Amino acid sequence: MAEKIEEKKYVVGVDVGGQTTKIGVVDARGDVLSQTVIRSDTFGDDADAYIDALATAIKGVIKESGKEGQIRGVGVGAPNGNHYTGTIAYAPNLAWAANGSVDFSAKLSKKMGGIPVSLTNDANAAAVGEMTYGVARGMKNFIMITLGTGVGSGIIINGQLVYGHDGFAGELGHTNVVRYNGRTCGCGKQGCLEAYCSAIGVAKTARDWLEMSSEPSVLRDVEKITSKDVYDAAKEGDALALRVFEYTGTLLGRSFADFVAFSAPEAIVLFGGLARSKEFLYEPMKKAMEENLLKIWQGKVKILFSQLKESDAAILGASALAWEL
Amino acid sequence: MAEKIEEKKYVVGVDVGGQTTKIGVVDARGDVLSQTVIRSDTFGDDADAYIDALATAIKGVIKESGKEGQIRGVGVGAPNGNHYTGTIAYAPNLAWAANGSVDFSAKLSKKMGGIPVSLTNDANAAAVGEMTYGVARGMKNFIMITLGTGVGSGIIINGQLVYGHDGFAGELGHTNVVRYNGRTCGCGKQGCLEAYCSAIGVAKTARDWLEMSSEPSVLRDVEKITSKDVYDAAKEGDALALRVFEYTGTLLGRSFADFVAFSAPEAIVLFGGLARSKEFLYEPMKKAMEENLLKIWQGKVKILFSQLKESDAAILGASALAWEL
Repeated sequence: MAEKIEEKKYVVGVDVGGQTTKIGVVDARGDVLSQTVIRSDTFGDDADAYIDALATAIKGVIKESGKEGQIRGVGVGAPNGNHYTGTIAYAPNLAWAANGSVDFSAKLSKKMGGIPVSLTNDANAAAVGEMTYGVARGMKNFIMITLGTGVGSGIIINGQLVYGHDGFAGELGHTNVVRYNGRTCGCGKQGCLEAYCSAIGVAKTARDWLEMSSEPSVLRDVEKITSKDVYDAAKEGDALALRVFEYTGTLLGRSFADFVAFSAPEAIVLFGGLARSKEFLYEPMKKAMEENLLKIWQGKVKILFSQLKESDAAILGASALAWEL
Repeated sequence: MAEKIEEKKYVVGVDVGGQTTKIGVVDARGDVLSQTVIRSDTFGDDADAYIDALATAIKGVIKESGKEGQIRGVGVGAPNGNHYTGTIAYAPNLAWAANGSVDFSAKLSKKMGGIPVSLTNDANAAAVGEMTYGVARGMKNFIMITLGTGVGSGIIINGQLVYGHDGFAGELGHTNVVRYNGRTCGCGKQGCLEAYCSAIGVAKTARDWLEMSSEPSVLRDVEKITSKDVYDAAKEGDALALRVFEYTGTLLGRSFADFVAFSAPEAIVLFGGLARSKEFLYEPMKKAMEENLLKIWQGKVKILFSQLKESDAAILGASALAWEL
């Protein structure tokens, strides 16, 4: 049996997003041999129909890769994916899992003829991806922070993902970063890191600041400001946009210092759309982190940016879970 | 060899404090068979002299217990004790380790004829003690918070202490709890949990509040207010003292919510002198934690108080480390 598993040298990675699901067959070096995309949002609340379509698509990419019979397992990263229970539950952006709990891993595995399925949330998958193929290769202790629409996190301690007592550990986007009169977060709490340091948070900061002053800014000509608009404005040297990134980076750095006090990681690794604003975020982030670190850690904790190819990263992250099956 | 270790059914626990060092021989049920105390503060900066005295005292209690030849190892909890390196370094309250790094484990082991020594900081030792003999028995994920002169912490994930990349993980007393204009902590940073929620912090809050108002309080008659004075005043129903505990508990609860977002523990376990003010701290602590938790954790994370006998707890915690040797 052990020998048979050794012969299975390929894995499938599945990244479940609100609009699309990306699927790929991956080898041990992190090369994506074949890949495809299906919609996630055309099945209404019918989870079974979605899982049917997913299984069919997975079989398709396996066939295309020519590695049938050599697949060790399927790794899945999905919003609110729970490693312990194999369920996706109350995921607001997935209509078929928004109002209850879907027995995802068991159902997918059954439809795939019993092939093992490992599920976790997308940020955890990204962390394992960085450890397996990315900038965190060889690290036993680091924290992955995904800066996208929201702020996600995956924590690696002693070379293992931290799942916690219930499988939901690593919600660092919902730790507090502004105590007094903090912005209301999508989760209902106030002052969460995600309310400020996500793509949505950055756009909101820009809109708030434009409203509070009459300072000139190219952003005044933009109708519905997104974080991309703020980035473009900063690129042009717009002072307000630059200050938005400085503020965002400062809040991130302060939070990072507290995360370091928890698990003493070797590095904090950043990934996601907003992480592409590295040129504006890095300096204030690093400065604020150093200022808020205990002396024992000053100058010792790296802030790294993912270098995985954007188009492959989500699939790679999810696929990496399957190596641990 | 494995058999021989199995026959060694007793361990030694050593709790190194600023003034005294407690030493005891412990069995697997957590009974202290024999114990003694030596001074920690009469050796100046001579670490070797201290370690000599300690080795002699350990040999003495082993002899007294009648378990010579049956000792599996020595567990040591000490301020700034580093598990990875076996050193005690820059510990302000230990003159012989205040200005450099002492190769503690290796030296003690050598003087004890090669018996293995496991060292960590006092809060980590307390966490292992609770997991082995205390209220956290059977738990795989919990966070120990020691509320004493300072605020220490030991984090257990998947049944193991979190040491982090460098051995210094778990400094939750130095995470931020007051962002704006926060009190300066002993570590030099501002707004740390320890600056507010330690014994020293509670006394400082009382003194600050007395100065800021003319509200009557029995504490106005006390010359150098300590946390014990605040506790006694609260016992008498003193309104200001009661509010000091309410404030302290609220800050602790807020921080606990962020800690839960990190590692999703089954429980937070409290220990230390200030934890004896449970009757005043528990309600505001619990309320603030629940208010700041993500919905998935509301009503699910326990706040527990250590029930180990105060006189034995430090020895038990340290001794528990030796079982893992």
